[in-house]
Amino acid sequence: MIERLAVIGVGLIGGSLARALRSVDAVGEIVGCGRSIENLELALELGVIDDYAADPGDAVAGADMVFIAVPLGAIAGVFARIRSRLPARAVVTDGGSVKGSVVADAQRVLGAVPGWLVPGHPIAGTELSGVGASFPELYQNRRVILTPVAETDPEAVARVRAMWERVGSEVTEMSVEHHDEVLAATSHLPHMLAFGLVDALARMRGNDEIFRYAAGGFRDFTRIASSSPEMWRDICIANADALSRMLDRFGDEMTELAKTIRAADAEALLAIFERARAARERYVNGLEKPLE
Amino acid sequence: MIERLAVIGVGLIGGSLARALRSVDAVGEIVGCGRSIENLELALELGVIDDYAADPGDAVAGADMVFIAVPLGAIAGVFARIRSRLPARAVVTDGGSVKGSVVADAQRVLGAVPGWLVPGHPIAGTELSGVGASFPELYQNRRVILTPVAETDPEAVARVRAMWERVGSEVTEMSVEHHDEVLAATSHLPHMLAFGLVDALARMRGNDEIFRYAAGGFRDFTRIASSSPEMWRDICIANADALSRMLDRFGDEMTELAKTIRAADAEALLAIFERARAARERYVNGLEKPLE
Repeated sequence: MIERLAVIGVGLIGGSLARALRSVDAVGEIVGCGRSIENLELALELGVIDDYAADPGDAVAGADMVFIAVPLGAIAGVFARIRSRLPARAVVTDGGSVKGSVVADAQRVLGAVPGWLVPGHPIAGTELSGVGASFPELYQNRRVILTPVAETDPEAVARVRAMWERVGSEVTEMSVEHHDEVLAATSHLPHMLAFGLVDALARMRGNDEIFRYAAGGFRDFTRIASSSPEMWRDICIANADALSRMLDRFGDEMTELAKTIRAADAEALLAIFERARAARERYVNGLEKPLE
Repeated sequence: MIERLAVIGVGLIGGSLARALRSVDAVGEIVGCGRSIENLELALELGVIDDYAADPGDAVAGADMVFIAVPLGAIAGVFARIRSRLPARAVVTDGGSVKGSVVADAQRVLGAVPGWLVPGHPIAGTELSGVGASFPELYQNRRVILTPVAETDPEAVARVRAMWERVGSEVTEMSVEHHDEVLAATSHLPHMLAFGLVDALARMRGNDEIFRYAAGGFRDFTRIASSSPEMWRDICIANADALSRMLDRFGDEMTELAKTIRAADAEALLAIFERARAARERYVNGLEKPLE
């Protein structure tokens, strides 16, 4: 049971955790914090939070659990504001899509990674943002990755794990570096392809006509290009190494594929498409099975 | 009213047109033709066709409308089999995703593009294949592109247009070259990115783990990678010029994006993502409005 939860950043991610914990009676009081008073008022009105504070330091006063769900570029600032106000018993975790930058921010702002910080990442979301888009089921049957470092207090990890399990998530642990590699491949690269494709089409001559002839599959394929530009700018910069390597590799592969197509190499093309279809079927079947 | 429709290739595309015409009482008899007797038996059982023939020449005997919905690589063979069997009043159209190759096949096999051939392309489909996946609403409110050439009989175009309009499609005409450029951008390139991404991930070390951490958006993004490998092999080869150019360009753009990310150029990244999101919103809003 969490007595007082502080949610720094009450958007889709932060708001959904608040709603989820509330829906299973796992939290006493919830205090929100954010840049937009309008959004906080809406959160209050929707019953997502009980109270709010404009300053992260004020928000964490008295809290035993703090969830930081702001864009990656704003995390260092939150660390700076809460460092002297955090109660001794409090545990802090975050929802950032890149973990290397969160750990680096902690080292820079706090001098070292504190025992109370459990870097985390719930693998969940939609292309929408804001507290209005939040819902209590967002984390059900979703994976949450925690990336504790050597300095992290094991009891803090246990408390964060228990919180996520309470809202129906499957929690796994891995190293910061491995997390950032895996997410570059499965999330950051696909988002770059979707943003890149829509942008490329938008810059073509006669782009209105081009979009008019896009079929239904295009809509699904590009849904993630409607995600928050600010959030993705921050993710790119925070995971620049792994993501830019992945993009270079993918760019080379597209050049290779262009060559294979020019050479009309029917066998090689069929092999690529069959391998991809089989891999996707395995992936979808895996999704439909309960999480191990 | 079509008296006798021959559907060469009774899969998702051919079967759905048969069902759609039947559902609006716009067709008398429907004869199917295909390589798989099992699929044709299923089509018969489902009431999609009234009869079938193993040979395209037999299937078109007595037909006033012929719809060729086989993979692009099989179209030349169909032309060869039907050329001497086609009734004088018959009109032939097709559902191929590339039009340059269909016109080239006609020139090669038939000596010239015959007046009765109306190259066409309904912009509709799902990632499924086979007559079991066909349904009568597939073409409702979808666009159909016809690409008549100089030799095409205007009356044949009018009859094909009337058929598609009868099943609820919006018919537009454009040149063969323009069609192949537009589709390379809006359909063929996205499919290559989805196939390429899933294949790249499948070839990574520890790919089972990688797929395990793919979020919900990944599923939508890669749905089109479950499309028929044979069909896409044929599309790639048939539209090699436009598609390989598009892929080269996209590969270069991904390399540029990698540079922008390495340079941590926050402003440039934000501009790309904002432009893409805005373009996608315009596109989705356009979809939700009735077709002009």
